[in-house]
Amino acid sequence: MQVRSTLSRMTPYVAGERRTDAIKLSSNENPLGPSPAALEAVRRALDESHIYPDGALRGLRTAIAGHMGTEPEMIIPGNGSDEVLTMIAGTYLNPGERVLIGEHTFSQYAFAARLLDAEIERVPMPELRLTPEAILRAVAARRDPPRAIFICTPNNPTGIAFTRAELRHVLDNVSERTLVVVDHAYQEYATSPEVADATAMVNRYPNLIVLRTFSKIYGLAANRIGYGVATAERIAELERVRLPFNVNGLGQAAAIGALGDDGFVVRSLETNRRGDERMRALLAELGYQPLPSEANFLCFPVGGDARAAAEIIASHGATVRALGSFGLPGHLRVTIGTDQQIDVLERGLRALAAQIPPDARSDHGARTGAANSGVTAGSQQ
Amino acid sequence: MQVRSTLSRMTPYVAGERRTDAIKLSSNENPLGPSPAALEAVRRALDESHIYPDGALRGLRTAIAGHMGTEPEMIIPGNGSDEVLTMIAGTYLNPGERVLIGEHTFSQYAFAARLLDAEIERVPMPELRLTPEAILRAVAARRDPPRAIFICTPNNPTGIAFTRAELRHVLDNVSERTLVVVDHAYQEYATSPEVADATAMVNRYPNLIVLRTFSKIYGLAANRIGYGVATAERIAELERVRLPFNVNGLGQAAAIGALGDDGFVVRSLETNRRGDERMRALLAELGYQPLPSEANFLCFPVGGDARAAAEIIASHGATVRALGSFGLPGHLRVTIGTDQQIDVLERGLRALAAQIPPDARSDHGARTGAANSGVTAGSQQ
Repeated sequence: MQVRSTLSRMTPYVAGERRTDAIKLSSNENPLGPSPAALEAVRRALDESHIYPDGALRGLRTAIAGHMGTEPEMIIPGNGSDEVLTMIAGTYLNPGERVLIGEHTFSQYAFAARLLDAEIERVPMPELRLTPEAILRAVAARRDPPRAIFICTPNNPTGIAFTRAELRHVLDNVSERTLVVVDHAYQEYATSPEVADATAMVNRYPNLIVLRTFSKIYGLAANRIGYGVATAERIAELERVRLPFNVNGLGQAAAIGALGDDGFVVRSLETNRRGDERMRALLAELGYQPLPSEANFLCFPVGGDARAAAEIIASHGATVRALGSFGLPGHLRVTIGTDQQIDVLERGLRALAAQIPPDARSDHGARTGAANSGVTAGSQQ
Repeated sequence: MQVRSTLSRMTPYVAGERRTDAIKLSSNENPLGPSPAALEAVRRALDESHIYPDGALRGLRTAIAGHMGTEPEMIIPGNGSDEVLTMIAGTYLNPGERVLIGEHTFSQYAFAARLLDAEIERVPMPELRLTPEAILRAVAARRDPPRAIFICTPNNPTGIAFTRAELRHVLDNVSERTLVVVDHAYQEYATSPEVADATAMVNRYPNLIVLRTFSKIYGLAANRIGYGVATAERIAELERVRLPFNVNGLGQAAAIGALGDDGFVVRSLETNRRGDERMRALLAELGYQPLPSEANFLCFPVGGDARAAAEIIASHGATVRALGSFGLPGHLRVTIGTDQQIDVLERGLRALAAQIPPDARSDHGARTGAANSGVTAGSQQ
């Protein structure tokens, strides 16, 4: 059977590994588990599982808007933000249109763009940073403005965030016909005061769409709830391609419940702050140089093949992410866990450091040196 | 912001109405509620809500395949079968390619086709029946074979099912380059021995994809689990466009739990059989002529505007579906409920019959006369 030609360009997703005999630090999930208030809301919704979920998503939109201090008409929930990405592609991308995506970032921007036959142009990240200058250089390299630019901040897998000034610099210098999609999946974890909050900018920039998720800080990755924030005009456009019942009913209930669980968010952030501090100290002691992450994970070069490094750590009881699929075959990405989880990780990291001699790491260390001088460097120490 | 041109052709979905003060017989949900075994499985899965669901869907595929006596490689689960439809479109439909869809059927075939810029050709259903002859006539009307044909059997909203011979007639007479998509959402309810089971035909016809769902007989509409069945080659093609985590974790657990709940299926079928009998007798007494449904709903012309009729019934405590969005502005579709629900419905139907004089119904009755002579007529009496 003849398939669409674009399918040959679509590569299968590489998920964070899970092993029954190991803790999972490979997918940046919340180490505290799900929000208890979310689970309670799910339990209350169980008996209505036979009824189609609210297709208009009124309750969920209203709860999100109330939490953010905006309007329900500026919110579009999705089956995870992955689905919001495909809605964006289905709404705006025509075959052959150019979209800009960072060289080392989350795979689903390219997935969604390819699904609609757009042409992907990778913006170089020579020191693992996506800069406004590199983006604007790519924009200017062709006469027609790109159809869309995808910016992940804090970036997966580096953790490096755009500053407010950097994001404004992009938004103020691209055509209003160019859609700027900012993925804020890890935004809640950012601690530096300069980090860009794109959500606060959607009223000013009608070409901006911001993605948020309940998968990370609220601990609801299994429930699949993400959303887009933009002007009511953009949201109405996206609505045209939304499946009638795209967000499952228990997911809607979970998200609404989680939004009221401020205590869980506070505990999650405190766990992340403590874990970040301990993991940075440990990595420094062992000679690793993590990038200046504003998220719930750390990314660092191991020297040599990261898959072999991940295997050593897994054999000590923790799965972490080797970043070959992100174009970084020498880097690991490790979720910041609880104290008990870091105890397990520590054994693996010490074994790794013992097996891979320090000199083998120096060349990769050099590659990320400049990244360490970035705006957020030191902000989490 | 410029949107894709196809968006102007995409009409918003019209969902079955829900009112807090009325029972819901407007969306063909299971009147017994969700499968208890499914709920138990969900409760057990709750504590892992923070972990991404199994992206490979191994457990769910294996459970479905085991239940059907087929292979996991022949199954592709979706976020409801709605999403499987968009995956089919994303895999096979190129701009301008022709797809055939019945005149009065579920809206999401056209939605998915339009999303990928395909050209929709409606197959006439003059007596509310989609026939192999009408399909093959439409196929032959142009030199190039259509890219796809969508067949809903039992059909939503008429309830009329294809016979085995009818489906084979289509499959044996279309090009192997034409995809035949059979939506079996209501298949479990069919009682006539001649009704086509497309699932049993996928090994013989590599151009056949069958859709099934957990939303109806298993009572899991809120959980969003549907799936496609086809040869392993077709499934591998569809996999290319599947989102990594398209089926939420609790939905996966619910579906696996439901598959072991044979008792619930038996009770659901018995409830449907009894309700079908009672509702047919009631409608006949009142002078209405329902189509020969093989599903968990009955469809009949009311005489005059079905929206007004639905409003009368709703005012007596039951929401039903007026079929204007299906191109049948004079017809209602009513879910077969429990005895208590039919008690409520009965009051509404008696009020309706009293308010709309019998002569106003006769012209619509004529239109469905031939449909009543169909193969499945009488099989449920």
